[in-house]
Amino acid sequence: MLLRPSVCTFLQYLQQANVTHLEKKVLECGAAGRYPPLALFYEEGYETYGIDVSDYRIGLARAFCREHDVSLNIIKGDMRDIPFDDEVFSFVYESDSLCRLTKKDTGVAVKEMKRVLRRGGYLSVGFMTLDSWPLTGEERNPGEFWTHSGERDVVHSFFEDDEPGQYFTDLDIVWEEKRTAVRRDTVTVSREDWINQYNDTWTRYSKDEWVKLYDECKAHFRLSVLQYIARKT
Amino acid sequence: MLLRPSVCTFLQYLQQANVTHLEKKVLECGAAGRYPPLALFYEEGYETYGIDVSDYRIGLARAFCREHDVSLNIIKGDMRDIPFDDEVFSFVYESDSLCRLTKKDTGVAVKEMKRVLRRGGYLSVGFMTLDSWPLTGEERNPGEFWTHSGERDVVHSFFEDDEPGQYFTDLDIVWEEKRTAVRRDTVTVSREDWINQYNDTWTRYSKDEWVKLYDECKAHFRLSVLQYIARKT
Repeated sequence: MLLRPSVCTFLQYLQQANVTHLEKKVLECGAAGRYPPLALFYEEGYETYGIDVSDYRIGLARAFCREHDVSLNIIKGDMRDIPFDDEVFSFVYESDSLCRLTKKDTGVAVKEMKRVLRRGGYLSVGFMTLDSWPLTGEERNPGEFWTHSGERDVVHSFFEDDEPGQYFTDLDIVWEEKRTAVRRDTVTVSREDWINQYNDTWTRYSKDEWVKLYDECKAHFRLSVLQYIARKT
Repeated sequence: MLLRPSVCTFLQYLQQANVTHLEKKVLECGAAGRYPPLALFYEEGYETYGIDVSDYRIGLARAFCREHDVSLNIIKGDMRDIPFDDEVFSFVYESDSLCRLTKKDTGVAVKEMKRVLRRGGYLSVGFMTLDSWPLTGEERNPGEFWTHSGERDVVHSFFEDDEPGQYFTDLDIVWEEKRTAVRRDTVTVSREDWINQYNDTWTRYSKDEWVKLYDECKAHFRLSVLQYIARKT
């Protein structure tokens, strides 16, 4: 089981808060992949539902479910248009997925999560912040960095620390946590992949500077995330 | 199961790093209590050992083991004088325990953890930092705050961000993460307990200021922790 910090933090919050009056029914947005975080909720006795836009990752999650004989109910769906009725879940969360939307779509997605959440229910979402390093890609809008992945353009959104507050109307923020990780020996991309990623249409770096940037990753890598847990009022 | 962020982060690091050559044998320092974190390692197939100074907390952990039919091997022991031979564990960690030692004893404890750790093995430890709030008690040495708990004087140590580095000689730091939690609706102590805690021998606050401090907790509470994962060279 892969223990994502944001999912552990949410579960720990719920275990310590008094939420026994709420039905244990949870939705994860961006739920698929080889190690679906919903499995942790399943283990704790929750009725789980998940949506994901990627058929490939849904296939991986279903293989996990077969292998471990668990039923997580992960279906295809976009968090900007959640395929569930209003107010059916007590708990809604995402982990490392919201950051793949533009800021405008982030607002749409949080509104959708709020719609399917019951009054008194809890939402957990995370935002990457601008003190992360490196920020690569073409910054088409403030904090929105675009890169190429295969055939597609992919965005990652980064926020100022006080910026995500705008998304929490009609929600009481009950927990706010900033995590800044400095990895010294693990760089998530190989040197070769890093160099192949270079494309002068979307970076201000020259090819030489880009190659050197990889060597600096080990020393300067920094990933900052702001996590909010909020209750629907 | 209670998912402590530092334990989840350590397990996640080990799952993503290549440590399959190491025997899955782990020691936790400060391992007892109602929800022993070692249970997570047990679930992942580790041979687990734990030490704790508190008979009461060891009793709680043993009740957990009986109830869940798991064998975690938690015995009485002090992390400043670990009751195990040199280099017998591949993994050693603590979570929210080291902070209960003076800074001098913190150095002794980390040295002991390093002693029982095999070469190439991994250590995970955490330090509370001085940007936490409130810092209560008598500051007898820089960053060492003493309060009374029952019959005993209890210390909590808080560090500057660049201070813990001194403890990591003969160790390669492979992960460093700072977590700053701002709790808005949960204060861990009741108003009554807070007021009863007041004792003018160890705080510079007047009784009135102390009472007011409780009301401010909700708005200003902040707990910052620096976690290091290091490999023994």
